[in-house]
Amino acid sequence: MKGREASNEIQEKPLILVSNDDGIEAPGLLSLAAAMDDVGEVVVVAPVTEQSAVGHSITLREPVRARTWPFRIPSGVIRAYAVSGTPVDCIKLGIDKLLPRSPSLVVSGINQGPNTAVNIIYSGTISAATEAAILGIPAISFSFCRWTGGDFEASARVARSISLRVLERGLPSGILLNVNIPDLPFEKLRGYTITRQAKSKWEESFSERKDPFDRPYYWLSGTFVNQDSGENTDLYAVDNGYVSITPVQHDLTAHQYIDDLQSWTWEDETSEPEKL
Amino acid sequence: MKGREASNEIQEKPLILVSNDDGIEAPGLLSLAAAMDDVGEVVVVAPVTEQSAVGHSITLREPVRARTWPFRIPSGVIRAYAVSGTPVDCIKLGIDKLLPRSPSLVVSGINQGPNTAVNIIYSGTISAATEAAILGIPAISFSFCRWTGGDFEASARVARSISLRVLERGLPSGILLNVNIPDLPFEKLRGYTITRQAKSKWEESFSERKDPFDRPYYWLSGTFVNQDSGENTDLYAVDNGYVSITPVQHDLTAHQYIDDLQSWTWEDETSEPEKL
Repeated sequence: MKGREASNEIQEKPLILVSNDDGIEAPGLLSLAAAMDDVGEVVVVAPVTEQSAVGHSITLREPVRARTWPFRIPSGVIRAYAVSGTPVDCIKLGIDKLLPRSPSLVVSGINQGPNTAVNIIYSGTISAATEAAILGIPAISFSFCRWTGGDFEASARVARSISLRVLERGLPSGILLNVNIPDLPFEKLRGYTITRQAKSKWEESFSERKDPFDRPYYWLSGTFVNQDSGENTDLYAVDNGYVSITPVQHDLTAHQYIDDLQSWTWEDETSEPEKL
Repeated sequence: MKGREASNEIQEKPLILVSNDDGIEAPGLLSLAAAMDDVGEVVVVAPVTEQSAVGHSITLREPVRARTWPFRIPSGVIRAYAVSGTPVDCIKLGIDKLLPRSPSLVVSGINQGPNTAVNIIYSGTISAATEAAILGIPAISFSFCRWTGGDFEASARVARSISLRVLERGLPSGILLNVNIPDLPFEKLRGYTITRQAKSKWEESFSERKDPFDRPYYWLSGTFVNQDSGENTDLYAVDNGYVSITPVQHDLTAHQYIDDLQSWTWEDETSEPEKL
């Protein structure tokens, strides 16, 4: 892909909240904060420990703590907080208590590993962005399609570029972008493509073991099953070298099934369910 | 509402997995398991501790343990397991390791408190049912719209009735039912109605406190804001005495926004993003 210049000088620097689910020490968070440095004023609010697969979990039964963190990007030390809770806690606490004003953009990541297909629902990275979308703030989740190590440079350039676009164009209320970047050098990326979430599931196979006291325990493991042969999916895009951009919403209603359900016989009633 | 007789004798008893997020000792779980007793063969797999608001969290970094639990319903002691993880862990582990065969139905609840509007995304009760739907098993989440105490009898009757219908009719792959029951005696319920999730959010106001060592901590609290005046919503239904049935899906793609995103200028490219 060709590079892209920064857009015209921004009048007032937009405030950008950067979070993740891999924790405040994750290399992908550092790459993302650095990539946002000339896009706006950056504040990092991230979990103090890894929070992968916590989904949209929030901390209700315990207090949450936040402490300032010496977060250094190439241009210097920026404002950062390490939070004892989940990614969603970070967004809620950041916006309510830690940030100087409401952010113009929330970016989450860069996740170590893809967040495609059914994995969207388990991902703390995406949930951070989802929470921002619920609160009416444009939000983007970025994931680097490599499980360990690697070079986040291409992903960071993509993140900067898409963030600039979203700051220019905005996003509809309640919709965030889920971006997955293949593990390729920037020049080898084949471009951006708009996708849908591939249909898939995990086939579990818990590993059953015995502890030193002969008591059983289980570790979750499993095999990912792609049930979707569509070429407009997130999985297909990243497998074929494209940056995948999926619009994601938090309205979980299966609108297409409402009419069918209305037609069921609701035998406690004299007729169909009352339509409100 | 009028009562409903059990359907014709079922040839082979369907296996019903009962779970929740309030924990294995919650009264709503007991009511739900008892309500399923003559509907099928019931196995309970529930978290050992309360897991409200854990969303679709799964346990990856620690092992999960399951122990048999003396779960007594009016007809006697039934097979039950208390699991050290989240509601989603319960479903995954139950289906992979604990149940004698794949269940015909997964029911989750009866939750103490409503799961309507934006709360769907935070709810462990619903996530248990969602996980079953991902795995291709018909699933229903039941919630009693009262935050503490109360009588689960009407909710249990509704749960039994809807479960019988779902066993008869099935559900499309990937779609579950989210049922909310008002806090009214069964006779006062105005009927069933099919709804959509109301648009809403929580406006956070973290309570900032100091611990005995003068270090700050935060408790999450907030005000629920209904942003939706629709009369076909889950909130409207339960506020007006109806049992609300919302079909819920786990495909999070905002399909309606894909075309808009395609039309954005993707300036790293010479033209629009490539359509796969």
